Amino acid sequence: MATQGPHVLVLGFGGVGALYAYVLQKGGASITAVCRSNYETVKEKGIDVVSEKYGTHRQWRPDHVVRSPEEVNDVPFDLRPSSATIRPFLEKNLSFSPKKLPLVVLIQNGVGIEQEVYDSLVTSKTPLASGVVSGLTWVGVTLLGEGTRIEHGLMERLKIGLYPPPLDEAPPKELGEDFDRLVQLFAKGDSEVEASNDIVSVRWSKVLWNISWGGVSTLARQPVSIMLQAEMLPYTCGVVRGIMLELLAIARADGIEEKRLPAGTVDYVYELTFKSSRAKIRLSKNPDEFYETGQATYLPDDFKPSILVDLERQRPMELDSIFGNLISIARKKNVDTPRLDLIVTALKPSQLEFVRASKGNPEPNTSAPDYNVYDANPSLNKTGGAPVLSQ
Amino acid sequence: MATQGPHVLVLGFGGVGALYAYVLQKGGASITAVCRSNYETVKEKGIDVVSEKYGTHRQWRPDHVVRSPEEVNDVPFDLRPSSATIRPFLEKNLSFSPKKLPLVVLIQNGVGIEQEVYDSLVTSKTPLASGVVSGLTWVGVTLLGEGTRIEHGLMERLKIGLYPPPLDEAPPKELGEDFDRLVQLFAKGDSEVEASNDIVSVRWSKVLWNISWGGVSTLARQPVSIMLQAEMLPYTCGVVRGIMLELLAIARADGIEEKRLPAGTVDYVYELTFKSSRAKIRLSKNPDEFYETGQATYLPDDFKPSILVDLERQRPMELDSIFGNLISIARKKNVDTPRLDLIVTALKPSQLEFVRASKGNPEPNTSAPDYNVYDANPSLNKTGGAPVLSQ
Repeated sequence: MATQGPHVLVLGFGGVGALYAYVLQKGGASITAVCRSNYETVKEKGIDVVSEKYGTHRQWRPDHVVRSPEEVNDVPFDLRPSSATIRPFLEKNLSFSPKKLPLVVLIQNGVGIEQEVYDSLVTSKTPLASGVVSGLTWVGVTLLGEGTRIEHGLMERLKIGLYPPPLDEAPPKELGEDFDRLVQLFAKGDSEVEASNDIVSVRWSKVLWNISWGGVSTLARQPVSIMLQAEMLPYTCGVVRGIMLELLAIARADGIEEKRLPAGTVDYVYELTFKSSRAKIRLSKNPDEFYETGQATYLPDDFKPSILVDLERQRPMELDSIFGNLISIARKKNVDTPRLDLIVTALKPSQLEFVRASKGNPEPNTSAPDYNVYDANPSLNKTGGAPVLSQ
Repeated sequence: MATQGPHVLVLGFGGVGALYAYVLQKGGASITAVCRSNYETVKEKGIDVVSEKYGTHRQWRPDHVVRSPEEVNDVPFDLRPSSATIRPFLEKNLSFSPKKLPLVVLIQNGVGIEQEVYDSLVTSKTPLASGVVSGLTWVGVTLLGEGTRIEHGLMERLKIGLYPPPLDEAPPKELGEDFDRLVQLFAKGDSEVEASNDIVSVRWSKVLWNISWGGVSTLARQPVSIMLQAEMLPYTCGVVRGIMLELLAIARADGIEEKRLPAGTVDYVYELTFKSSRAKIRLSKNPDEFYETGQATYLPDDFKPSILVDLERQRPMELDSIFGNLISIARKKNVDTPRLDLIVTALKPSQLEFVRASKGNPEPNTSAPDYNVYDANPSLNKTGGAPVLSQ
């Protein structure tokens, strides 16, 4: 531990985790990577970083490679950075009597992923962290060769912000300084990082694409471009927009007002993808007038949303953070979400299957005594509306 | 043409078509089968009927085997018994100066499949048919061996009725007699046939299952039993019920009142499948009380809805008759159908692909001048809600 720079513990050493570990080390941090399936190879030979943006670095090594303190840790299974996953590492850190508590940085899609971590690690009786930094990345990076190589193109954008969002108020001085140092660290590592004083709103607008264009494309098991062919537009357009409006209704009910998430975001996210269509759009007000799309094609023809990629590779999908949290908020606030409910219901059986397989139980466990008990209590129903049956 | 019994022309010699051709011949009719892909083999060797209910009949032969009068006929492609498909056969029949016009019998799922045929063939200037009989079958029969064999279990139920439904009024005398003779013909052939004076309502209740339990199971690409595991129930139940209520709303808006389609049908169709769950349901009013399901399991564990079977075999699905017609009525009557829209949108790209493939064009045809033109006119949008884009 001779390094002068900050120490960073990276939990989740997949594509995104490894790439940002590389970036942060380049920025001056000492990296401890927590590896699971690729522990042996990373420990022994490091990992190949193959990136158009950052160059090729064979056998790049984090400063330290460790396994999870508890082998039964469920990090790779539930895909949710819960406080229970992070806690053992922070407790160990506390036993070293650090001069100050660390920041917890969560880089993941979805809304509502921070509160539980914040309550449990920052504002709890014995705080284990000084604050929560919430982050979103726009990056195409894949872990290959059984965890021995990551491949990355040119695109990399990172938005991070303190949670809860300070909005127009300044954050507490020391926390603000820690946060600024973190931004600098990413920037020095050549990340296209941007600080946001309202990362929560950024989360809502990012998830807007994932649930809508991403949702229909995943349900159809087709690249987004297939949903954009002329014959599909009469179907896709209304449905995609309808999904987006469900999200907007949930956001409003959750107190995210127009100023923080303008309704126009729906149009923006909608049209951005729509413009990738090769269809020629005839406008109804004038039959001779066309809306020319396909010129600013920004989606490759074979582009598939990440949930669909996970589905096809039979890997657990980010269902909970992308859809589950939205639906939970919707139920609490009595917002109807017929389309979101249906998407989750259609993908959930595969999720259950993948999670079971990753735990080594390919079949549903019917031997556990309560396994098969379904509580017919509407308040417990994720998608709502399931009635108590008469006998 | 020496047979004394009625002459029956069977259009669509797949599993269901061949089975009922066998039944009707057994009942005393002379059968002319219109074959397409299996014309040569059926003409030469007949077809093997392998049925638990009707026994095994190797190389059973219809009385006559013909090809479509026009080789380019689209019968197998659009899956919709449109008047255009039937008309050439009836015109030929008319040229023989028959003593009376024939009945057209449509056996197929979905609602709203009869009106176009009725308008075009019965009440048109030059009528080609004396009436339309609308029918639904509950039967598990599969065409195998490249059209050389059909396999069938024990279950076979047929409901038929005149279209438009006579309801409480008696149909015109001659038409009523023709219809009764048809019922007798099926009965003599050992079909479990039942006459209905409101076949339209029967259509609505049958499609209720296909769109709901069938819909979620198809979107998930999973057998229905997988949707019934305890962990899925909080998701499936609300969604399935929501889909059913969309249908009920469309039916009501279309003038099908409570008397013809009781709201309780929703509960009935819902619970019937629900009872196949192996989950133990704890009732909320009393935590010690359980609703025991799984005892009356009537669905085999691997049972898949027919749309899913078609999807997996990459064959055109009955999307139009099962979903398309419902959505068309809903748009006309301004009924919101967010779940139905999403299901169709998710399945349509595969449908387009299968239809193209069956026509020998695996890729979208982008060379036709107007192929890629999408009319951004909301009134033309199947699922509605697609806005006219600003320029």
